[in-house]
Amino acid sequence: MSSIQLTKRQEKIVEIVKNSGPITSEQIAKKLNLTRATLRPDLTILTMAGILEARPRVGYFYSGKSPRALIAEELRKLRVKDVKAVPVVVREGTSVYDAVVTMFLEDVGTLIVVNEEGFLEGVISRKDLLKVTLGQTDIHKVPVSVMMTRMPNIITTFPEETVYMAAKKLIEHEVDALPVVRTLVDSEGKEKLEVVGRITKTHITRLFVELGEAE
Amino acid sequence: MSSIQLTKRQEKIVEIVKNSGPITSEQIAKKLNLTRATLRPDLTILTMAGILEARPRVGYFYSGKSPRALIAEELRKLRVKDVKAVPVVVREGTSVYDAVVTMFLEDVGTLIVVNEEGFLEGVISRKDLLKVTLGQTDIHKVPVSVMMTRMPNIITTFPEETVYMAAKKLIEHEVDALPVVRTLVDSEGKEKLEVVGRITKTHITRLFVELGEAE
Repeated sequence: MSSIQLTKRQEKIVEIVKNSGPITSEQIAKKLNLTRATLRPDLTILTMAGILEARPRVGYFYSGKSPRALIAEELRKLRVKDVKAVPVVVREGTSVYDAVVTMFLEDVGTLIVVNEEGFLEGVISRKDLLKVTLGQTDIHKVPVSVMMTRMPNIITTFPEETVYMAAKKLIEHEVDALPVVRTLVDSEGKEKLEVVGRITKTHITRLFVELGEAE
Repeated sequence: MSSIQLTKRQEKIVEIVKNSGPITSEQIAKKLNLTRATLRPDLTILTMAGILEARPRVGYFYSGKSPRALIAEELRKLRVKDVKAVPVVVREGTSVYDAVVTMFLEDVGTLIVVNEEGFLEGVISRKDLLKVTLGQTDIHKVPVSVMMTRMPNIITTFPEETVYMAAKKLIEHEVDALPVVRTLVDSEGKEKLEVVGRITKTHITRLFVELGEAE
């Protein structure tokens, strides 16, 4: 990719397209005092190398894709539904003690709290639980609903969202996990969030490793 | 990248190089009953598109780089030293209670435990601390050294290691953070690990977001 050596003429073409694109091959030929036939191999090479892009009836324009831009393009193709794991949920009434036990048994860092109908009510992290266990609270009696994060403060994602956007939410909102939800509207027109998965920093890290694997 | 349309002849060339590479342009020309001059534009295009690679005095060989292979190549260029953060450390004698407080004050999920000389002694995570606070232990009296992970069980990385390898360690060993260390040898020939940073799943996730940013 980075080893493309352009000829003087190819460099001139790139310069013209950068400044005047979109531009037709006829217009480029005119500017260089050459025939279209002479230009054709150069335009083919520049297009194949991904430096120029051609659109029918529009002409050539500069794509200027660096390896980094190509990576960004590829990364943004990945969807949450391709990466997400099953959600680990507890009911609102679950005690803090039972929540911690569930966290250890399932080996997750975040629990998703659902109501009796199974819809999203809250999120509770290892950090939240650690804070509680430090205090004087009787963790066998207090339910998770007392210290969980509630709507509208829960940051969620959905199956069709890009993994890039989900990762951005994890970083910007400083959370370790996002519930993956599907929005349903009940008979009264009220929105309810069905929990269909979870996505965490562990999944992003695993994806990073997979992307780094040689094929 | 993925939009490269090869001609029949270019496809034949790729096939020949795949099967017989490294192979010189003369040998390819002979196999196709063509002159080298006729082949030259095709070989140029295939090389520029990154499908073939040319080495002086060796010939052409098939690189077959897909967008994913290019991503892997780029990702593997990143080093731990480019990403790592400052380490958050406590001394071996620190009480569990003080460790939890440090964790909240510094907002980290893992603390690195060092001895009096400042060398790596242990690692303690939010998960380890949550386990302790659940029990009957007096967290004001018990030091972190009682439940921390010790050498040789600590998974470490070093500044020159690739971020890819560090991420692989995070996933394979199921830890959230790695101490970044430099190995020193003391006057008695004993190895000591100086802690120079930490790298976590949060750093990998942030890097993922940066790689996904459009330029």
